[in-house]
Amino acid sequence: MRLVVPLQGVVQGRGGLILGSLIPCALFYFLQFYLKRHRSPEPSSSDPPSPSTSSSNLAELPRTLSRSSLSSTRGSFGPARVSSRASSVAKPTDSLYYVGLDKVKLDPYHRTDNPEGIIQLGLAENNLCLDLLEKWVSENLTDSIMGTNGGYLSISSIAMYQPHDGMLELKVAMAGFMSQVMGQRVLFDPSQIILTAGATPAIEILSFCLADHGNAFLVPTPYYPGFDRDVPLRTGVELIPVHCRSSDNFIFSISALDQAFNQARKRGVKVRGILISNPANPVGNILPRETIYDLLDFAREKNIHIISDEIYGGSTYGSEEFISMAEILDSEEFDKSRVHIVYGLSKDLCLPGFRVGVIYSYNGSVLAAAKKLTRFASVSALTQRLLIPMLSDTKFTQEYIETNRRRIKKIEKGELELWDKLLNIAKINVTPGSACHCIEPGWFRCCFTTLAQEDIPVVIERIRRVAETSTSSI
Amino acid sequence: MRLVVPLQGVVQGRGGLILGSLIPCALFYFLQFYLKRHRSPEPSSSDPPSPSTSSSNLAELPRTLSRSSLSSTRGSFGPARVSSRASSVAKPTDSLYYVGLDKVKLDPYHRTDNPEGIIQLGLAENNLCLDLLEKWVSENLTDSIMGTNGGYLSISSIAMYQPHDGMLELKVAMAGFMSQVMGQRVLFDPSQIILTAGATPAIEILSFCLADHGNAFLVPTPYYPGFDRDVPLRTGVELIPVHCRSSDNFIFSISALDQAFNQARKRGVKVRGILISNPANPVGNILPRETIYDLLDFAREKNIHIISDEIYGGSTYGSEEFISMAEILDSEEFDKSRVHIVYGLSKDLCLPGFRVGVIYSYNGSVLAAAKKLTRFASVSALTQRLLIPMLSDTKFTQEYIETNRRRIKKIEKGELELWDKLLNIAKINVTPGSACHCIEPGWFRCCFTTLAQEDIPVVIERIRRVAETSTSSI
Repeated sequence: MRLVVPLQGVVQGRGGLILGSLIPCALFYFLQFYLKRHRSPEPSSSDPPSPSTSSSNLAELPRTLSRSSLSSTRGSFGPARVSSRASSVAKPTDSLYYVGLDKVKLDPYHRTDNPEGIIQLGLAENNLCLDLLEKWVSENLTDSIMGTNGGYLSISSIAMYQPHDGMLELKVAMAGFMSQVMGQRVLFDPSQIILTAGATPAIEILSFCLADHGNAFLVPTPYYPGFDRDVPLRTGVELIPVHCRSSDNFIFSISALDQAFNQARKRGVKVRGILISNPANPVGNILPRETIYDLLDFAREKNIHIISDEIYGGSTYGSEEFISMAEILDSEEFDKSRVHIVYGLSKDLCLPGFRVGVIYSYNGSVLAAAKKLTRFASVSALTQRLLIPMLSDTKFTQEYIETNRRRIKKIEKGELELWDKLLNIAKINVTPGSACHCIEPGWFRCCFTTLAQEDIPVVIERIRRVAETSTSSI
Repeated sequence: MRLVVPLQGVVQGRGGLILGSLIPCALFYFLQFYLKRHRSPEPSSSDPPSPSTSSSNLAELPRTLSRSSLSSTRGSFGPARVSSRASSVAKPTDSLYYVGLDKVKLDPYHRTDNPEGIIQLGLAENNLCLDLLEKWVSENLTDSIMGTNGGYLSISSIAMYQPHDGMLELKVAMAGFMSQVMGQRVLFDPSQIILTAGATPAIEILSFCLADHGNAFLVPTPYYPGFDRDVPLRTGVELIPVHCRSSDNFIFSISALDQAFNQARKRGVKVRGILISNPANPVGNILPRETIYDLLDFAREKNIHIISDEIYGGSTYGSEEFISMAEILDSEEFDKSRVHIVYGLSKDLCLPGFRVGVIYSYNGSVLAAAKKLTRFASVSALTQRLLIPMLSDTKFTQEYIETNRRRIKKIEKGELELWDKLLNIAKINVTPGSACHCIEPGWFRCCFTTLAQEDIPVVIERIRRVAETSTSSI
C-alpha cells in the first residue's frame, strides 16, 4: 500500500520559511505511524484514547447539556428527538481530516504561548502575503466602506438588503479578477456569476441544482476531504470515488471514469456529474489541455455535468500553465450548458474569513435556481463593499498574484532543501510534493510499507538528527 | 372575503415621516384592485401583462442564454438537464410577495432619478435609525477592524478561517445584546448560540435538524411569505397553515393547532414542530404569556418542537411587553430541549446587509448538527470584527433601541394621522395596523369586498384628494 503523506511546511506565522518548523511536522507524522503500529487492533480500555474515541467524548459534551432538561417536571418524554438526518450530522465524525482539525482547536500551537500545542498543517490557509493585504486594507478601509464623496458614509449600502446573489459591482470586479488570475486568456461574464458565502456553499448549491437526492457525482481521488461534507451532507448526492494512481501522476483516465459510471448504473445509481478540482487539491496536478477535451467529450457522451473547482487557479507557481475550463469553452465549441466553475477568494487572495465564493455557470436554469438559493448563503454587504475597490485595484491584485507565486516558489525551495537534508543527513528517501506536481509546497510522499515495524525508531532518530541540525542553524 | 392590505408607510429615504409618500401607496394598491377587477378570468393575448406573466417572460431570459449553446456542434444532446428540484426552484415564482419584489428591482422608485418608479413597501427594512448607525460606524470602523493596539491591524483575524458557527467574542456580545433587547429579563448563554449568515439560513438549518424530508411544521397564519422558501425549498419540510381569524386578533388557538395536527396525521404526515413568529410578522401581535404556556404544553403533549422566530423582539413600541420564549423557560420548568429561538440583526439593528442570524437552542444535538451545517452559511469575519465592539457598546445599543422604539411610535402617529385624513377628508374607513396590533406602522386593513366594481374610481378619486392636500402642505 502507498500513501501520500501530508507534511505541509507552510509556516503558520507571518514571514518567510523557517526550515526548523518543517522538521517537527515530520516527527509528528512519523510518531503517528509509530503509535499506529504499536496499537493493538482491538483497543482495550487501558489504551491511550485514539483520535476517534476522544472525539466521541467531545461529542458527548452537548448531550450532557440537554440532559439537564431531563429533570424538568413537565418534560416527561425526555429530550425532544431531532430529525434522523440531524442525528447523522451530529454524530462524531469518522473523517480523520475533521478529527485532526477539532483536536487542534483544543490545543493550538503558539510559538510563545503554547509551544507544545498541535501545529496546524491540515488547513489550507495561505499566510504568505498577509503583509500585502494588511497594507491595502490599512490604506483603503475607510474609503471603501465610507465612500470617497467627501467622507460621506453611505450606510444604507452596507446596512440594507442587497441582492442575495451579490452586488453587480462586485460581480464585475470579480470577473475582472478571475480574468487576471487566468492571465487574461479568458474573459468572464459578470452575468454568469453568482456570489456565495464561500466556495463551500457554492459547491452545495451546484450539487443541489445538478443532481437529485440519491444521484451521484464521480470524483477522482485523492480528493479534498471537505467534499464529503459539502456534497452529500444536505443534498443527499453520493460521491463515487474514481481512483487514480501515482504512476499516472494522479490524473484520472477516461476509462476509469467510464468504469465507475457503468458500475453505478448497474447498481441503479444515476450519475449526474463529475466533480474535479483543477489545480487538484490535495495533489496539485494541473489538468493537461487534452484531458480537459476528453473530459468534455465524456460528459457530453454520458449527458452529465462537470463541476470544475478552480479555487487554486491563481496559486500555481511552476512552469506548467493552469488552463481554466472557461478558457477551453471560450475557444472551442463544446456544450457549455454542462460546465460549472467554482471559484472563491479563500486561496488565491487568502481571504477565507471573508466567506466569498463564486458559481460561474453557462446554464440559465442553474443560474436561476442558484440565484434563489443564495438566500441561504449570501455575502455580507460590508465585506462586498470592501472587496469592490480591492478587486478593482488591478495594480494591487497584480502585485499580489505575482508576489504570492514568488513566495510559494521560495517555499518550494525550502521543500527541496528539506528533501536534500532528509536524503543526505538523515539518509531517508522520500518524494517531495513538487515531484508529484503538488501545488502546496511542503508535502512529502512516504511509502511507509517499505519499512518493517522495527525500522520506525531508526527513522525517527534520523529525523531528529535533521531537526537538531536545523534548529542549531537558526 | 377579507384581506389585510399592506400599506406600509415607512419612508425609504433617511429622515422622518413624509406623509405625502404614504398616499401614493394607497393609490398604488387601489389601482391594483382596479386592474384585477377589470381583468378577464382567462387572460387573452391583448391583455396587459399581469405580474405573473411578465415574471415568466423574465424567467425566459436565462433560458435564452443557454439556448446559444444549442448551436454547439459537439452538443448534440441539447442543453444539459438540471435536477428536478432545481427545475422546480428555477420556475417563476407564484408568490406575489416575490413577484412584487422582483418588479421593484426592475424599476425602483427614486425621489429625483426615477419618481415614477415602483415604491418598495414589500420589504421589511427599517431605515429609521440609519443616522445612529452611520455615526457609530464612522467613529469606530477603523478601530474595530484594525484594532486599537497602536493602530496595529490584525489582518489574520479578519482574513483567515474562523469557526464556521461564529467567533466566541461575537457570541458573547450577541448574548448581551439579546438580553438588552429583552429588557435584561433573561440571560442568554453564548454556548447555546450558533451564528449564521442571516435568520434565513438559521430557519433552514433548524428545519433540517428538527424534521426529515416529508415531515411538516404547523404555521399560524398570516405568516411571513419568506417561510415558504426558507423551510421547504431545500429541506423538503412541509408547512401546514393553521388559520387564525381577526376576531381572535390573529392569535392561534390550541384547538386549531390540534385539529391541524390530527388532520396531518390522518393523511400520514408527521408533524415535527410549530413555527411561530413572535412578535408576529406580518400582523405584529405579541403572544400573551398564557398562550406561550399553552403552546409549550401542546408541544410537550404532541412531542414536537417549537421554532420561535423572535427577530422583531426589540422593535415593539406599544404598551404590551414582548415576552421571549427564553424568559418563560428561564423561570418555569418546561422541557427546554424542544424550544429553538431564531434571532438576527436585520430588524432590531437594521443591518440586513450584514447577514447575521442566530440559532439559540437548548438541545445539544441540534447545536452539534447546526454547528456543522454553518459551513454553508457562515458570517464574514470582517463583519464579525465590526459587530463585536458595536454590540458590546451598551451605551450605543441602549440609545439605539430606545430611539428606534420612539421613532416607530412617531410613525405610528403618522399612520393615525393618515387614517384620520382618509376618514375625514377622503371619507373612507379603513382599519389602521395599530388597531390590529401590527408591529410595522403604516399598514391598513381594507375590506375591499364591501365595494361594488363601480365604486373603485370613486375611492381612487377620494384618495387623490388626500394626496393633493398632503403634498401642498409639505
